[in-house]
Amino acid sequence: MKNAFYAQSGGVTAVINASACGLIETARKHRDKIAKVYAGRHGIIGALTEDMIDTSKESPAAIRGLRYTPGGAFGSARYKLAGIDKNRAQYERLIDIFRAHDIGYFFYNGGNDSMDTAQKVSEIAVHMAVPLICIGIPKTVDNDLPITDCCPGFGSAAKYIAVSTREAALDVASMARTSTKVFVLEVMGRHAGWMAAAGGLAGEKAGDAPHIILFPEIVFDRARFLAKVKSSVEKYGYCVVVVSEGVRDPDGKFLAEAGTKDAFGHAQLGGVGPVVAQMTQEAFGYKFHWAVADYLQRSARHIASKVDVEQAYAVGKAAVEFALRGRNAVMPVIVRKSAKPYRWSIGEAPLGKIANKEKKLPRNFMTADGFGITAACRAYLSPLIGGEDYPPYARGLPTYVTLKGVSVVKRLRTPFVV
Amino acid sequence: MKNAFYAQSGGVTAVINASACGLIETARKHRDKIAKVYAGRHGIIGALTEDMIDTSKESPAAIRGLRYTPGGAFGSARYKLAGIDKNRAQYERLIDIFRAHDIGYFFYNGGNDSMDTAQKVSEIAVHMAVPLICIGIPKTVDNDLPITDCCPGFGSAAKYIAVSTREAALDVASMARTSTKVFVLEVMGRHAGWMAAAGGLAGEKAGDAPHIILFPEIVFDRARFLAKVKSSVEKYGYCVVVVSEGVRDPDGKFLAEAGTKDAFGHAQLGGVGPVVAQMTQEAFGYKFHWAVADYLQRSARHIASKVDVEQAYAVGKAAVEFALRGRNAVMPVIVRKSAKPYRWSIGEAPLGKIANKEKKLPRNFMTADGFGITAACRAYLSPLIGGEDYPPYARGLPTYVTLKGVSVVKRLRTPFVV
Repeated sequence: MKNAFYAQSGGVTAVINASACGLIETARKHRDKIAKVYAGRHGIIGALTEDMIDTSKESPAAIRGLRYTPGGAFGSARYKLAGIDKNRAQYERLIDIFRAHDIGYFFYNGGNDSMDTAQKVSEIAVHMAVPLICIGIPKTVDNDLPITDCCPGFGSAAKYIAVSTREAALDVASMARTSTKVFVLEVMGRHAGWMAAAGGLAGEKAGDAPHIILFPEIVFDRARFLAKVKSSVEKYGYCVVVVSEGVRDPDGKFLAEAGTKDAFGHAQLGGVGPVVAQMTQEAFGYKFHWAVADYLQRSARHIASKVDVEQAYAVGKAAVEFALRGRNAVMPVIVRKSAKPYRWSIGEAPLGKIANKEKKLPRNFMTADGFGITAACRAYLSPLIGGEDYPPYARGLPTYVTLKGVSVVKRLRTPFVV
Repeated sequence: MKNAFYAQSGGVTAVINASACGLIETARKHRDKIAKVYAGRHGIIGALTEDMIDTSKESPAAIRGLRYTPGGAFGSARYKLAGIDKNRAQYERLIDIFRAHDIGYFFYNGGNDSMDTAQKVSEIAVHMAVPLICIGIPKTVDNDLPITDCCPGFGSAAKYIAVSTREAALDVASMARTSTKVFVLEVMGRHAGWMAAAGGLAGEKAGDAPHIILFPEIVFDRARFLAKVKSSVEKYGYCVVVVSEGVRDPDGKFLAEAGTKDAFGHAQLGGVGPVVAQMTQEAFGYKFHWAVADYLQRSARHIASKVDVEQAYAVGKAAVEFALRGRNAVMPVIVRKSAKPYRWSIGEAPLGKIANKEKKLPRNFMTADGFGITAACRAYLSPLIGGEDYPPYARGLPTYVTLKGVSVVKRLRTPFVV
């Protein structure tokens, strides 16, 4: 009878806790095989420093509440383990901790880097002859993991962006006659344009906003951008732009860095949103507004996609099922079985094929002019924002859960500095 | 038998169309007294240029859909009529249009300035011996109209801000150990801190975010702000700040203008959010993130307050009822009849008492240190975000209505330049 260790890694999402919920609820159904699930406090750092939360102390209601609570309930970490050669001590420390706490299952919930870590932990366990099952659980709003059709967390961020774009566009359209003509929404996705593309779902017929999407995959061309803004304003009275934070100029420099300096000469105060908005004013005198969604887009559980919540739960559940079937060094993936009607199932991929790979937006998902999404892109994206899954409310606010977070008693006397 | 004219004015909200819905649905029940409702295309400009939409051409379903559609369905305008002495021609033009189209009722849906305009139109009608009933309908996310307990539009913006603050705070709390320690959400409210105060609803017990609110009513004190950020980070591991766009430094200058210059030396690219976030990094090296909600906060119909939607509908309905009872130069107001349980009714106020007055956040709604809201403020705000009122969805997106917008045939041959 072994315990399990679970940790959240990297930027959190609106549904990463739904994966934790799926994992813990499923583990609780197999108490004959998995005694307890320990969660790392602040991700893998919790393992390295022997700072773990005993999830068996949490009530069924609290665990159920994770399904609708955004953020990382156990704390996440931006902390990448170095290569085994460079820092073998870290890996050995993990194994020591797992041994000390009878941990036979390692579940790591994260993106590219995390799958790399999970893979390495698996290797070192084999090398040290420690029986340890390592399962990755996909999570990232960036939607950039290979093999899996999509990544839990993305659908909800995409829905937030699509809904917000549609709503703000109605606002701008109302105001354009005498006031704001250009509205810019800046979204995340430093390397891949999946989230920017999601803004494209807001419009369903010709002329609908957004009129321009700026993808990180397409080099920014100021003249072409400005020409497109002008033609939108002249044709529709206004122009809505969705811009990815990762857009770069022809020199490969982030636009966000190009523009702004504060009073002390420090760069990059503003984001790319204000930079491109300002351009349109300089060129044509258009009044503009801009919004930067930042963390709001990845924590907006109030407007989560039902499909995304279900998939996030399912990969957590599948991780336990894989482990109990003795699968090792694998990650559950989402398989699209049918596009219309949308049907999906859970598949399996080796960690090694996921780690350190990045799935960018394919060129045929972007229109020829590079400013919009194609029908193929829409067909891919649309099901991922499908359905609503509202959290419960009290006094006008979502009643997100807070865990008790009872610590596991330490068994090692050796401190470890991270 | 007279027709009615309705126009939307100033910045739109998530629920201004709910007022239009209440007005049009109620007018349709009194076809014996109000023949048709004409809506100004882009507000009062639609009247001046004889550019009106015949709402009788819209289906009952389309009008019903206005209840859950954000933005201004007929178009709004930032266009303040000059004083009668300065521009009598404009007022006379309005009367000419109203006469030409048998308009006996003037409904103006807006804020302070609009109530001033409605009042003046009423005066000039009396002066010109034209029978015209003028009714104002309150609307503003700024919540700064006097007499009325609150302003339709505010409750939904407040709910958006409170929910977003709560959600983003969970995200930051997860990340703080290794990454972001300070998160700043910039909200609207250039002169009054009502929207900033709404962020305070996100926290319900000691230590909950937001840890700092920066109100436009309180002069910004950099040293005190930084000390508070530091103590929050040390105590809770992170710090969430809600900042009003209207915060000013001791010289009375907007902070948003103080910081940023672009590569060409132009001021004010970024907002106040990045300015205060950057300060914390300069002082303590904290990693920060910031979001600027901008139009998202006033168009977020997907997370509208049910109370707000009901009140917006009710003031539209009451406007017609007042008109039919022969009331003139008045505005329906929200009267708080009971705090707990929250009960409200519709009252009446003369336009002259609303026009050009601004209700700021009272000092006793802000904590002694000026960084938070008091129990009195919470008791006032909390009911206004009460209840959810979700729009219908299809394909993962809210199905907001688009009106046909059939134009009223022009009767005057004289053009009018605005």
